[in-house]
Amino acid sequence: MTAPLPDTRPPRKGRALPDTQHGIRRRNLGRVMHAVSAEGPLSRAAVASHIGLTRAAVSTMVDDLIRWELLEELGPERPGRVGRPGSALAVSGRGPAGIGAEVGVDHLAVCAVDLRGRVRARAVRHGSNRGRAPEPVTEELTDLIRRVVTEAERDGLWAAGLAVAVPGLIARDSRTVVRAPNLGWRDTDLGALLPAELSPTVDNEANFGALAELWLGAGTPPDFLHVSAEIGIGAAVVVDGDLLRGTRGFAGELGHVPVRPDGPECPCGGRGCLEQYAGEEAVRRAAGIEPHEELLGLLAERADSGDRAVRTALSDAGTALGIALTGAVNLLDPETVVLGGALAGLSPWLLPSLEAELRGRTAGPACPVTVSTLGPEGPLLGAAHAVVRAVLDDPAVVAERA
Amino acid sequence: MTAPLPDTRPPRKGRALPDTQHGIRRRNLGRVMHAVSAEGPLSRAAVASHIGLTRAAVSTMVDDLIRWELLEELGPERPGRVGRPGSALAVSGRGPAGIGAEVGVDHLAVCAVDLRGRVRARAVRHGSNRGRAPEPVTEELTDLIRRVVTEAERDGLWAAGLAVAVPGLIARDSRTVVRAPNLGWRDTDLGALLPAELSPTVDNEANFGALAELWLGAGTPPDFLHVSAEIGIGAAVVVDGDLLRGTRGFAGELGHVPVRPDGPECPCGGRGCLEQYAGEEAVRRAAGIEPHEELLGLLAERADSGDRAVRTALSDAGTALGIALTGAVNLLDPETVVLGGALAGLSPWLLPSLEAELRGRTAGPACPVTVSTLGPEGPLLGAAHAVVRAVLDDPAVVAERA
Repeated sequence: MTAPLPDTRPPRKGRALPDTQHGIRRRNLGRVMHAVSAEGPLSRAAVASHIGLTRAAVSTMVDDLIRWELLEELGPERPGRVGRPGSALAVSGRGPAGIGAEVGVDHLAVCAVDLRGRVRARAVRHGSNRGRAPEPVTEELTDLIRRVVTEAERDGLWAAGLAVAVPGLIARDSRTVVRAPNLGWRDTDLGALLPAELSPTVDNEANFGALAELWLGAGTPPDFLHVSAEIGIGAAVVVDGDLLRGTRGFAGELGHVPVRPDGPECPCGGRGCLEQYAGEEAVRRAAGIEPHEELLGLLAERADSGDRAVRTALSDAGTALGIALTGAVNLLDPETVVLGGALAGLSPWLLPSLEAELRGRTAGPACPVTVSTLGPEGPLLGAAHAVVRAVLDDPAVVAERA
Repeated sequence: MTAPLPDTRPPRKGRALPDTQHGIRRRNLGRVMHAVSAEGPLSRAAVASHIGLTRAAVSTMVDDLIRWELLEELGPERPGRVGRPGSALAVSGRGPAGIGAEVGVDHLAVCAVDLRGRVRARAVRHGSNRGRAPEPVTEELTDLIRRVVTEAERDGLWAAGLAVAVPGLIARDSRTVVRAPNLGWRDTDLGALLPAELSPTVDNEANFGALAELWLGAGTPPDFLHVSAEIGIGAAVVVDGDLLRGTRGFAGELGHVPVRPDGPECPCGGRGCLEQYAGEEAVRRAAGIEPHEELLGLLAERADSGDRAVRTALSDAGTALGIALTGAVNLLDPETVVLGGALAGLSPWLLPSLEAELRGRTAGPACPVTVSTLGPEGPLLGAAHAVVRAVLDDPAVVAERA
């Protein structure tokens, strides 16, 4: 946490490196990193054949990547091969790490992920953030961040950047939380409250959750709709392996799709929005449960033990989700819908009615629904991996620091 | 219509030319064409400064583009300038042309558009295609196509490709009409029924209508939702200047977004879909009008003359559109919604209730709704321009032919 870091923010879609010699070299450095990351350990010759460049060109790049602590040599390959023995290359377990952080309604969490994708340090603080001002919350978060960075540094890593997941609307290409109703934040420039030397980026937790699913999920296709819930209903749309962000950065507001246009009023200004049927508060009331700190766990427990009111409430929420998702599937034609976050844990009681709606409202085969295996850590992991991916995509950004 | 043509199909998003010398040169040829097309006439020096390459590199490419009949020299620039007089370059009004065709429910239409974007030949045939087999329809369409190509050839043009707009679902990256309910077609390989020497491509009319709006509309932003209607409700989503196609190619089915989940049954298998409230049939019945060939004109005429039943029917359709669009806007966060096709002509009576729903269901400023000025020709023009754009993007595709 010394010199200011280069810009590791993910590029806005369509903003690519230019077709200059320099830009092409930077792209090729990224191709080398991705080849070794996906297929490694690989010899230099194998990398060259993977990305379609000469061994000489790859060797020069690999030398730089080793100097920058992005790749490491594992020693000579097993003997018996023809020619000069090559050394297998692997993505470095030292060097740059991505710092991910999450501002949850009921907790704060931070983790460090190395270039190999392993979590190397983490810190959590439980306690409600509802209605707290952004300053004390970000102060506590910064303490956790410094603790995690120090721990990572002891392990031979250094922080290549920080990405923060927030349950709210973030203006596109900014670090401004436009609205986070469950925290009570409005038009807050979070970037100014976070450690500047880590070049912090800020994004919606549903977006980071979907990216985690894309990068870490088992067999997740490049086109899917990710639906999650903490307090509100969050969703994110991934198209051809990229997040669909929307003009203002507000895409994915599935929670405010009208399900029954004359239904109950919603704080968003609408009526009968999905959140009025499938949001945490609505389900709690329908199930006849008093406000409770660990509501999601309680719902799962009671549903599991056969509580009729809870099962009916979850089944009705599944129906509402199915109606809203029918519209979304008709508009977006995703390959699959993934239920993540809190919805994953409740899926046994949501899925039957949800899938019945999707099936019943489609002439052809219905869009398949799968359940995330990442659990509630998706947004935090997605944030840390966003920094890691930015380094893999354009490794030259860390050249000055290394 | 002699030698087989190169592939001028628009590339699947993300499939770019490779970073080889050859690929980079092809990309740069496209940049030259787009610079001259958008800003021309331009001198070679001006092109070079526009795209950030040396004058020498640009000059070699320009020579090729002139030989291929894609650019033409307008003669020496006005005197009085310092240095060797340059010759202004313009996009050619001869050479390759895009052939667009439309299979409408009540008509067939074909046009030829030159690289400057001007319509140079056209042919139309009125008459219902409802329930007719694909073979006789495509035979008639092929007659129109040959007539238009012959007319264009007399004018110094040659057909660089054919794109056909169809009111139905087209499987992605194929020419197969999976379902066109208003024609009665199902799983029809239209490519096999069209003149092979024109390398025909096939796409949904709503997609071509949206592309026309993107390329030809006045001030259309790169992120918008295009809603049109002929018989059904069609929509297309444009994100960062690209069509969002969906996994199977079926994205944009706004007509089957549930508006009132317990509403009337829809042939799609659902209930209360938008088409049950705002589709042509639904509006006709609500307005108390008997089946009629020129229904849209009749509706506009009666609404204009103050017919209460028609005005109520259109206002109710606007309400249903507003509910479905609220969901779509929440999911996609477009910069604007554009009403095109038949909806443009009926917009005076649809817009008040439509906009009231959008405003009333949103806490912040509602997404603006604009009306297309392209009229019902959008899909036909979009098809022809898709071929023209493919030539501008990758001019080398016509090198062999020229």
